[in-house]
Amino acid sequence: MASSTSSSSSSQEDSPIQCFKYSRRATLRSVVGRPDGGLGLAGERAVVGGWVRSSAVVKARRAGLAASPSRRPEVETTGLTCTEVLMTRVPLIRRIARLMANGISVAASGDYARPAAGTALVRINDGSCVADLQITVDSSLCPLEQVTASGACVLVEGKIEQVKHTAPQYVVQMRVEKILHIGPVDSDKYPLSNAHPSTELVRGYPHLAARTAAVASTARVRSELIHAAHAFFQTNGFFHVNTPIITTTSAGNRRKMFSVTRLFSKSDDSRVTPEGVRAAIKEKMKQVEALKRSESNKEALEAAEQDLQKANVLSRQLEQGGSTDSSDDYFNRAAYLTPCHTLHLETYACALSSVYTFSPAFQVEILESDKSLTERWTIDVELAFAELEDAMSCTEDCLKSLCSTVSKDCSDELKFLSSSQAGNASNSLIESAVSSPWQRIKYTEAVNTLLQVTDKTFESKLEWGMPLSHEHMSYLADDLYKKPVIIYEYPKQLKPFYARLKEDLKTVSAFDLIMPKIGIVACGSQKEERLDYLTTRIDESGLQIEQLEWYLDTRRHGTVKHSGFSVDFEHLILFVTGLKDVRDTIPFHRTKGHAKY
Amino acid sequence: MASSTSSSSSSQEDSPIQCFKYSRRATLRSVVGRPDGGLGLAGERAVVGGWVRSSAVVKARRAGLAASPSRRPEVETTGLTCTEVLMTRVPLIRRIARLMANGISVAASGDYARPAAGTALVRINDGSCVADLQITVDSSLCPLEQVTASGACVLVEGKIEQVKHTAPQYVVQMRVEKILHIGPVDSDKYPLSNAHPSTELVRGYPHLAARTAAVASTARVRSELIHAAHAFFQTNGFFHVNTPIITTTSAGNRRKMFSVTRLFSKSDDSRVTPEGVRAAIKEKMKQVEALKRSESNKEALEAAEQDLQKANVLSRQLEQGGSTDSSDDYFNRAAYLTPCHTLHLETYACALSSVYTFSPAFQVEILESDKSLTERWTIDVELAFAELEDAMSCTEDCLKSLCSTVSKDCSDELKFLSSSQAGNASNSLIESAVSSPWQRIKYTEAVNTLLQVTDKTFESKLEWGMPLSHEHMSYLADDLYKKPVIIYEYPKQLKPFYARLKEDLKTVSAFDLIMPKIGIVACGSQKEERLDYLTTRIDESGLQIEQLEWYLDTRRHGTVKHSGFSVDFEHLILFVTGLKDVRDTIPFHRTKGHAKY
Repeated sequence: MASSTSSSSSSQEDSPIQCFKYSRRATLRSVVGRPDGGLGLAGERAVVGGWVRSSAVVKARRAGLAASPSRRPEVETTGLTCTEVLMTRVPLIRRIARLMANGISVAASGDYARPAAGTALVRINDGSCVADLQITVDSSLCPLEQVTASGACVLVEGKIEQVKHTAPQYVVQMRVEKILHIGPVDSDKYPLSNAHPSTELVRGYPHLAARTAAVASTARVRSELIHAAHAFFQTNGFFHVNTPIITTTSAGNRRKMFSVTRLFSKSDDSRVTPEGVRAAIKEKMKQVEALKRSESNKEALEAAEQDLQKANVLSRQLEQGGSTDSSDDYFNRAAYLTPCHTLHLETYACALSSVYTFSPAFQVEILESDKSLTERWTIDVELAFAELEDAMSCTEDCLKSLCSTVSKDCSDELKFLSSSQAGNASNSLIESAVSSPWQRIKYTEAVNTLLQVTDKTFESKLEWGMPLSHEHMSYLADDLYKKPVIIYEYPKQLKPFYARLKEDLKTVSAFDLIMPKIGIVACGSQKEERLDYLTTRIDESGLQIEQLEWYLDTRRHGTVKHSGFSVDFEHLILFVTGLKDVRDTIPFHRTKGHAKY
Repeated sequence: MASSTSSSSSSQEDSPIQCFKYSRRATLRSVVGRPDGGLGLAGERAVVGGWVRSSAVVKARRAGLAASPSRRPEVETTGLTCTEVLMTRVPLIRRIARLMANGISVAASGDYARPAAGTALVRINDGSCVADLQITVDSSLCPLEQVTASGACVLVEGKIEQVKHTAPQYVVQMRVEKILHIGPVDSDKYPLSNAHPSTELVRGYPHLAARTAAVASTARVRSELIHAAHAFFQTNGFFHVNTPIITTTSAGNRRKMFSVTRLFSKSDDSRVTPEGVRAAIKEKMKQVEALKRSESNKEALEAAEQDLQKANVLSRQLEQGGSTDSSDDYFNRAAYLTPCHTLHLETYACALSSVYTFSPAFQVEILESDKSLTERWTIDVELAFAELEDAMSCTEDCLKSLCSTVSKDCSDELKFLSSSQAGNASNSLIESAVSSPWQRIKYTEAVNTLLQVTDKTFESKLEWGMPLSHEHMSYLADDLYKKPVIIYEYPKQLKPFYARLKEDLKTVSAFDLIMPKIGIVACGSQKEERLDYLTTRIDESGLQIEQLEWYLDTRRHGTVKHSGFSVDFEHLILFVTGLKDVRDTIPFHRTKGHAKY
């Protein structure tokens, strides 16, 4: 996680609290995110901002006795769990919870200044770290309902003070002296006003979701993984290449590709599809059939038949005219969203040697029920002069480096996610993946191993040449080896045309990386650098070779052995966070039928 | 630029040359990219690979005398410039050029071992650095035409030796002892076989272009800028957020957006547009007119008129059916490629506070002649609790940091680009941009200043409320201030609806950054956080407010002052490299009518 550096532009120049360089407040990370939880800042003044996570208002037991210090004031809570409420009221529970929470010793109960009645205890978070900061707001400063509603935004100035009793998970809180800004919330209308909204509910509001601790934690983990990836590749001498998103190459998998077009816009978005034509014709055919059956109206039947015939003729005319349409489109040809960056990236590897890209890729999922992401991010890597083993080593080193960085720098986030309902990150799973060498096993061995399993029956059939099902992969990674497994040398029919054919002419130099609990997180291959083998494989795969002539140029002119791999970034996040649903790994998920905003 | 680290997996464990960790050779960067040009490695053995840039073959003057050491052998060159050829032949020119090139003193001519006749001198490059490595290949090792053709790929093993005379820009060369791989080239068919192909020619072959020194240098600069950007934001505590590429929000600028669809694919890519229908009807109308004019065939006319009527009816039916089409599309609604990441990124800033993204954005250009990129990459930044001035400071710091890194770590690339025809990078321009504070000037001041200019007449008219033209911006940045200029507080009609309205109700808190020689490289604004002002501005802009309801939620619930900016990454590359054409800043450019591969 980044350390939030800061400039000297703070107004409190002597303060150990430094203002965030580009906004007018100190980040919570620089206060409660410190190793001492902020203890060293007690007594200091600061400006902090954030959104309200939960709150409690200290109330007078009876009217007229509000200010009496001799009576323990009542506390009315918003968005606190039952335990949290108990803790604010029962000293013993407070003390136990405090000991469990962080073990930092604070002074005993004697010097405890009870919050006065009419004080709001508000936990705010600015997204810079997992920990909230508790601020206390006196009712003289503002109408308390403005600062106690979950989701409200506040920017406040105040004094940091050591917490003695009130909240065991906090070492310090801020006593607010000045309110600089309030962004209010109407709790009846704010969809996430419940302090513990369900994952399902949160997913419906992607534009507000990051205000929940779970989504914010996931976002920080995602960010850290991206930083770690760039750091790994820069340290190892790779160049980042922006391969295109719009592509005019449809390498046979057009069924899985989205079209990019301007044809709709030319006609103010009213458009006609061949389905429309066919539907109209079908309707007319039904009319004709009905008239035939009724035998009542010969003239009507004739007219309908004529009508149908004309419609058919027009439809054919239109379809013929329509087939050349893409030449009228923006790029003068059919264009698509790229499903994969490999081909374009290879061309740069065949010049710069070691290249990678972190880019979005787009894949159509046919099944309505499918939760697979249509817009995914992938890390793609290509290495010239490298063979299969090099690509496998690079995959292993890269993912180990990412996991290691994130487990170190996002430990609070991973802890939070594993303790919450959202995720189930097992730090031990990550640590074992980082520390021990991964299992490598040939596909043929894997199949033989699985066929000999006696302590478990698999639902899906398996024989050589068939893909491994999820339960097969799970058995290998979760039960047998209990670590990440790289399966390599697949039957050629299971892998893309560009995977290099082995001498047996049956298998190719390709691999899948299986992560425990998740399944395939990366796949890679040594690329076929021999022109004749490659063209044969393209033919065998039933692809249009004309679409790939440019790609073949890299084999015609100065061909080189090269290998690469592709990491499914969202699946990696699933592994690291323990999240169950891939839709929760990305800020605005796109799946079949769903693309909010 | 990244340092290519390396493991101990090299076979030559004692060698100071370390093998690149994930491929079977040392990078040229680790040999000739060293500060000593590789001198310290003389005598060492290594494996290197790369593509042939140019070559020369030492020929015997006469047949039969080839091996005679007493005669100076002739040199036949491929892809060398005139000066380079001269240098290989005339000792004095060699010596002068050597002194000019690097000033490294090498031993005098006495100990010079002339290359034997039948030896090829081949300059290879593997893309890891600007410098080539010269390898010498004896004709006994392979047919020399295989290794001398420009574009051929070689992987060779040999001994590094100090160069005395042959090539002034080289300190060391490699005497090849073993050829491990050759990827040949048929020079007649290889489009870039000319050693100095024109920029125009290279642009036509984006899949091979990175084998030229200019495109490879640009690619490395681009990569380094990306790394520097991530480093800047990580150091400053920002989180990277992947905002979506496919969006279903068309905030009024649908005219400038690409549609994303699956409707074409459902029908095997044969499709019908309303244009097609109308064209068919037009054709029929012409027939009718012609028949009317001829007056010869009443029956034919009647039939044609009937036909036309039917076609019209069917066309209306089809168009009505077609208008609801997007509900049949993949996302059950119209979907687009995002033209801008601001709106989605803002929602994450209103939760995580300091966020950025480096993402592709898509914009339709209407003019055929326009060379603007349709697929661009932008750095977008949003900061909660930040005002206009914070965003301007962050822009300045960010771009200074990027320029500073690239001028330090890509100095060879920038030097090369400024010396070649491709670019015209002025290092002094970059350095002055890095070292001095940038000019900040209000739009109103800028207009007043420009209206008072007497030493120059501008072609385009200017008065308050009009946008500044390119010549106005150029006058301010190139002539008047001679440094980057930030112009801020624009009339509201010149800026998007989300820019925050100032108290004068006429101007908004928005800015443009003008870089010398280039024009606008970044723009930003403080966002309107007040719900009522924002809805008014949306209305005024003629946008559909229903499309933006989700965006307004961030103002309804816990609104916060926030500011941000967007860097046009390809324009930044233009500034840094001095390239003239934005199409050369990105690996596979997409412009109107052009999207190769």
